[in-house]
Amino acid sequence: MSYFPDIAPPDPDAAAAARDRQARLTKPAGALGRLEELSVWVASCQGSCPPRQFERARVVVFAGDHGVATAGVSAYPPEVTAAMMANFAAGGAAVNVLAGIADATVRIADIAVDTDEPLTPTVGAHKIRRSSGNIAVEDALTPDEVVAAIEAGRAIADEEVDAGADLLIAGDMGIGNTTPATTLVAALTNTEPVAVVGRGTGVDDAGWARKTAAIRDALYRTRRLSADPVALLRICGGADLAAMTGFCAQAAVRRTPVLLDGVVVTAAALAAERLAPGARQWWQAGHRSTEPAHSLALRELGLEPIVELGMRLGEGSGALVALPVLRAAVATLATMATFEEAGISEG
Amino acid sequence: MSYFPDIAPPDPDAAAAARDRQARLTKPAGALGRLEELSVWVASCQGSCPPRQFERARVVVFAGDHGVATAGVSAYPPEVTAAMMANFAAGGAAVNVLAGIADATVRIADIAVDTDEPLTPTVGAHKIRRSSGNIAVEDALTPDEVVAAIEAGRAIADEEVDAGADLLIAGDMGIGNTTPATTLVAALTNTEPVAVVGRGTGVDDAGWARKTAAIRDALYRTRRLSADPVALLRICGGADLAAMTGFCAQAAVRRTPVLLDGVVVTAAALAAERLAPGARQWWQAGHRSTEPAHSLALRELGLEPIVELGMRLGEGSGALVALPVLRAAVATLATMATFEEAGISEG
Repeated sequence: MSYFPDIAPPDPDAAAAARDRQARLTKPAGALGRLEELSVWVASCQGSCPPRQFERARVVVFAGDHGVATAGVSAYPPEVTAAMMANFAAGGAAVNVLAGIADATVRIADIAVDTDEPLTPTVGAHKIRRSSGNIAVEDALTPDEVVAAIEAGRAIADEEVDAGADLLIAGDMGIGNTTPATTLVAALTNTEPVAVVGRGTGVDDAGWARKTAAIRDALYRTRRLSADPVALLRICGGADLAAMTGFCAQAAVRRTPVLLDGVVVTAAALAAERLAPGARQWWQAGHRSTEPAHSLALRELGLEPIVELGMRLGEGSGALVALPVLRAAVATLATMATFEEAGISEG
Repeated sequence: MSYFPDIAPPDPDAAAAARDRQARLTKPAGALGRLEELSVWVASCQGSCPPRQFERARVVVFAGDHGVATAGVSAYPPEVTAAMMANFAAGGAAVNVLAGIADATVRIADIAVDTDEPLTPTVGAHKIRRSSGNIAVEDALTPDEVVAAIEAGRAIADEEVDAGADLLIAGDMGIGNTTPATTLVAALTNTEPVAVVGRGTGVDDAGWARKTAAIRDALYRTRRLSADPVALLRICGGADLAAMTGFCAQAAVRRTPVLLDGVVVTAAALAAERLAPGARQWWQAGHRSTEPAHSLALRELGLEPIVELGMRLGEGSGALVALPVLRAAVATLATMATFEEAGISEG
């Protein structure tokens, strides 16, 4: 079963034109370092050199609870997920503040928060279920639900691109969600769980041991399925993770660049790359979080983070801190003078 | 002789209030990583919690030529310095574009460009001389000139703070300027030159060998002077470097935070810390460049760069890429909701 069409790569001609223009800007060749490479990437995603500055950078926070949170794997109780949804809507969370700095807007999507009533009908428009199953003892989703969740993420990407989004960021909110995310990364990369289990929001030693045990139990049920990302999302993922997977893959289908955030989004992206090979060419890693599974997933995707600031919050926060760097890359390539324009000999 | 008054540290009470507020924001403790530490620093510099967002971030590009550039130590001819001054004035350089992204403004100061006519009277208001001496064979400055140059930088800092600047960035422009900067770092840290000589704007192997020889010859004349930063600026620095030294120290005197840029500015900052001990508490390192002497100077100052993007342009460019991260730090501490405000129990 093929969920996504073949992914076309970003435009190599625009990339070549961007490299040529970089060489003519009033600075030594290569002196802008990583900014130059990022500017070439944006130009190739847009199929245009010089690239355009992002006019509608959009964060979608995928929210979902996880049954495993009742097993004491997090420093916070599950009720915090719903409470944070209200905080997002009121503009008081980190994602809201950082979006303001980065000139992005925020959408929240209740995919599987453990409430009957979504915050608003719009927020709940793509809701799959209340919470996902406790992956320590049961599958996260039914076969129908995992497909519906991937489709939900896909639909959200389509809605955003159709509304004019020219850069997408997925964020996550869900108490306990680093447990399924870590399980997913371990399963997709055939890694021993103990090597990649982190502290999430700051769980203590006893909680870390419970988290590791839950991941080990979930992984046992995924054995021999590492090549089937949909099965993994169903068994050891969750509706929010499956929706992010569909979102990241569909962004690539729609030729729209994505800045990845932390371990939860990147776990979903790793599943998306398996479902839609080549999708990763449309993504950059915004940051490196402190979660070990995040670094593993980034390495597997061949992505190098733009910033490393020891963040571990999710919500899209790390990607939003990286966004001004990406904007700086675009601006330098698009608007710096060339040696010829400035009347300077090239040394 | 004491050039600067004692430096007062940033306000510890505001830092304590900032740490306390960070712990009450709607996120796990520590989840914003480095942003939290930066926000505490800004609050302590401002003596106020919550901190205020920067309203007048100001870059001063200190421009100067260096006699040593005629010795083939750079990939570019000395005439490029003056040509780039015109490019700055026209808004076509990286510093202009990056300042636009970071919401900062740019001032250019001709301290020692090798022309008789500064670009404008304002640009040349603090000019010390045409070029600095070729440090491979002669002192960069006379005893009077080095004092005048330090005073020039000090006056520029005062002018900017008096005009309302609440964050200062020093940038550099000058073909050949990584040669005196590297010499200065080596002299201030008693380091073998070959360990710290970089490629500057991209000099070839033969040029690198000439650069290393020039630095070795200049260092020979500074032996036994590592504890005298003014003598080092005179012998192996230059008027632009001495002005940046005065600027960084005076910013601390005026209790105004500074984002350091690359190897040239950081070499001057290292001299400033020796002249005005404690000044470094008012500085953060914007980025880590590819120049080995930059890392050495940062380590000596105990500063950890905010971003590492392989940049090596100067002009203030690396500090400007870091500025939105600092703004993000301020914004999160100043405007995120607390758990109490959001009605969320703290787990």
